[in-house]
Amino acid sequence: MIKRMLKYLLSLIPSQQVYAHCDIPCGIYDPKPAQIAAATVMRMVEKIEALPKENPSVEDRNNFVRMVMVKEQHAQKCKEEILILWTDYFKPDHLELFPDLHEKFWMAAKLCSENKQHVSRESAQKLIDAVNEITQIFEKSKTPVK
Amino acid sequence: MIKRMLKYLLSLIPSQQVYAHCDIPCGIYDPKPAQIAAATVMRMVEKIEALPKENPSVEDRNNFVRMVMVKEQHAQKCKEEILILWTDYFKPDHLELFPDLHEKFWMAAKLCSENKQHVSRESAQKLIDAVNEITQIFEKSKTPVK
Amino acid sequence: MIKRMLKYLLSLIPSQQVYAHCDIPCGIYDPKPAQIAAATVMRMVEKIEALPKENPSVEDRNNFVRMVMVKEQHAQKCKEEILILWTDYFKPDHLELFPDLHEKFWMAAKLCSENKQHVSRESAQKLIDAVNEITQIFEKSKTPVK
Amino acid sequence: MIKRMLKYLLSLIPSQQVYAHCDIPCGIYDPKPAQIAAATVMRMVEKIEALPKENPSVEDRNNFVRMVMVKEQHAQKCKEEILILWTDYFKPDHLELFPDLHEKFWMAAKLCSENKQHVSRESAQKLIDAVNEITQIFEKSKTPVK
Amino acid sequence: MIKRMLKYLLSLIPSQQVYAHCDIPCGIYDPKPAQIAAATVMRMVEKIEALPKENPSVEDRNNFVRMVMVKEQHAQKCKEEILILWTDYFKPDHLELFPDLHEKFWMAAKLCSENKQHVSRESAQKLIDAVNEITQIFEKSKTPVK
Amino acid sequence: MIKRMLKYLLSLIPSQQVYAHCDIPCGIYDPKPAQIAAATVMRMVEKIEALPKENPSVEDRNNFVRMVMVKEQHAQKCKEEILILWTDYFKPDHLELFPDLHEKFWMAAKLCSENKQHVSRESAQKLIDAVNEITQIFEKSKTPVK
Repeated sequence: MIKRMLKYLLSLIPSQQVYAHCDIPCGIYDPKPAQIAAATVMRMVEKIEALPKENPSVEDRNNFVRMVMVKEQHAQKCKEEILILWTDYFKPDHLELFPDLHEKFWMAAKLCSENKQHVSRESAQKLIDAVNEITQIFEKSKTPVK
Repeated sequence: MIKRMLKYLLSLIPSQQVYAHCDIPCGIYDPKPAQIAAATVMRMVEKIEALPKENPSVEDRNNFVRMVMVKEQHAQKCKEEILILWTDYFKPDHLELFPDLHEKFWMAAKLCSENKQHVSRESAQKLIDAVNEITQIFEKSKTPVK
Repeated sequence: MIKRMLKYLLSLIPSQQVYAHCDIPCGIYDPKPAQIAAATVMRMVEKIEALPKENPSVEDRNNFVRMVMVKEQHAQKCKEEILILWTDYFKPDHLELFPDLHEKFWMAAKLCSENKQHVSRESAQKLIDAVNEITQIFEKSKTPVK
Repeated sequence: MIKRMLKYLLSLIPSQQVYAHCDIPCGIYDPKPAQIAAATVMRMVEKIEALPKENPSVEDRNNFVRMVMVKEQHAQKCKEEILILWTDYFKPDHLELFPDLHEKFWMAAKLCSENKQHVSRESAQKLIDAVNEITQIFEKSKTPVK
Repeated sequence: MIKRMLKYLLSLIPSQQVYAHCDIPCGIYDPKPAQIAAATVMRMVEKIEALPKENPSVEDRNNFVRMVMVKEQHAQKCKEEILILWTDYFKPDHLELFPDLHEKFWMAAKLCSENKQHVSRESAQKLIDAVNEITQIFEKSKTPVK
Repeated sequence: MIKRMLKYLLSLIPSQQVYAHCDIPCGIYDPKPAQIAAATVMRMVEKIEALPKENPSVEDRNNFVRMVMVKEQHAQKCKEEILILWTDYFKPDHLELFPDLHEKFWMAAKLCSENKQHVSRESAQKLIDAVNEITQIFEKSKTPVK
């Protein structure tokens, strides 16, 4: 029972563990900023949808513009952060372990664009999932093989 | 009479005087960019309010978006400029002379956020006043104590 | 006949030719980024005009904001790119060959502002034409005088 | 014994816990980007110090310039990230719980400047510590009071 | 005598007066940021020259890189600020009053580049003078003609 | 003979042809900015290598820092431009025609990093070649299949 509890607790610490275990020979990489950016995109979709649809006030329209801008910026930030992992962190050796690495990052990057072009919880959730999947690949790549 | 006139004229020269009297041992600080940014925020509020409320044309809506963006950028610029003064210019010694220094800057920074979130002459005026107050503190800190 | 064909083909290669003939003693200059930016401004005007005018959906309004932002950024990018040519590439000697150089660049820069403030195919076309004229001046300045 | 182990494990999860517990009524705040930036500053100090002191090659000098730039950018990024927490996240109510809030953030911001101006492990460590202290304040502010 | 004194005092208030007299029909223009930027360029030249020439320490070399960067950024900022005045504020009507307007701004912009490429008090002083001349043109353009 | 000449001439027109043939259903894509950026990286390597190695003057050291910065910025710009093509322009359908698409872009992006970290004509040439190869793929993707 305690073992399971410990295991569960450990499962809660992805980026922290990564961070702590990283000996950083060539730089500091962390999927956390991409996760924050993806969560912000979802937050903006929720906030845009919560605005009054009929007769929006000047303040509502002010905030609509701002939320679209923030969504755009964080979708772009998310794209940049995952591309830093793809272009700088991952090396040819990693392709053996993760043969669909390129595909995963490509699709995640395309989801960033999709979230710029749309206001959709479904698209935002797909982006969050894609970033989480990338986080798991990243963590696995850090785990020393026994 | 002439003394009063001179005094009035001198009262018109805040940043200029500061600038001219500054021997700049450790950098060039000037509250003017924060003042320009705060004035721009007010200008944008006025311009947004002057747009037609009913049946805005495509051009009106184009300019609404642009004015909200400019308001956002200058509220942000204002925040950055006053924080440069707070973090870089003011030193622990200044706290004796200005015991509410932190509070003043905190509230001014929060007014920048308030002006992003709203379209309000009252909020814009409060920001202008807060920046002017900071300008006065800045000037006082430059005056050699007799 | 073939001579004319060759001449026509060569006329299609403005920036390429420029690029190839450039011995770059003091930097790499190219009017292509300004051309791309001007074309993007026109593209955004077309796309804004293609949006539904009645009862726009949340997605339409999302894209309206984004298109205005992209138009703004590329009008600004266009201004910056042509001003790089004006301030850095052109030298006092060029004024003899192009006595209205300043006027041409001034008017082109003002067209960038005009395209920020309006949603107009006519303004966008005038910007494209102005950038093309600058491109021709640039190319002429590169041609060795016989 | 297991209780202590659990407690230790939990102590490893600061930002993760924060993140998971956050109901985000007014935005997404996270001290992680400031932590990453502070760690990067330290990394750059270490890397600058590891460069050959005598007869540096062109490549060594290339990397010296780049490391100083990266140190500058991440010290600035660190400053911006903690100031977002100070100006946007913390509210007047928090001052009761954390009466030295302003002082802590002021000193942390000044440490960012110190790390720009120097190449010093001691200064970098002080910045890491200051950001960790801010992280703890942030987490405490999130914990529901029983 | 008092008249001369008043005149002298008034001569000290360029941007302030401009600012106060400005009815801002189409925006807020101010040559102050260009002046601050030009002053910063000079300050950096002075600071670079004050660094030890023989056996610079790591900290000296850290600051050399930073000062060159700051000089570059403020020379660029200065260029951008004066070009905003040239492209946005000045209108064709102004050319009658200031027939060498284009020439003055062109030369000032070229001085910004010169200050990037060199470490020279003479170049920095020429830039300060050019920006002051532009400030005077700007002020004259604001004065109502009697 | 003329046929070969024409063919050669046509081979000189990559981005121009692309540009003219593009019906732009979903945006304006052009590999030219990536080519300019790669050429700038090479130019900076050449200029850095041309600086005096012994007893560099303050001006030489000023320009060394600036050239490293420009190399860094254009290597980064090159990376961003090719990633725009990869993430936004290319669609899953293209993978059939270009099965090594991901690999090509990954390697090109890694060459951008290599050029930041080194001062090497060989690395700069490899980047130019990689961008040219991408340009050819881009052009092929635009050619209607007969």
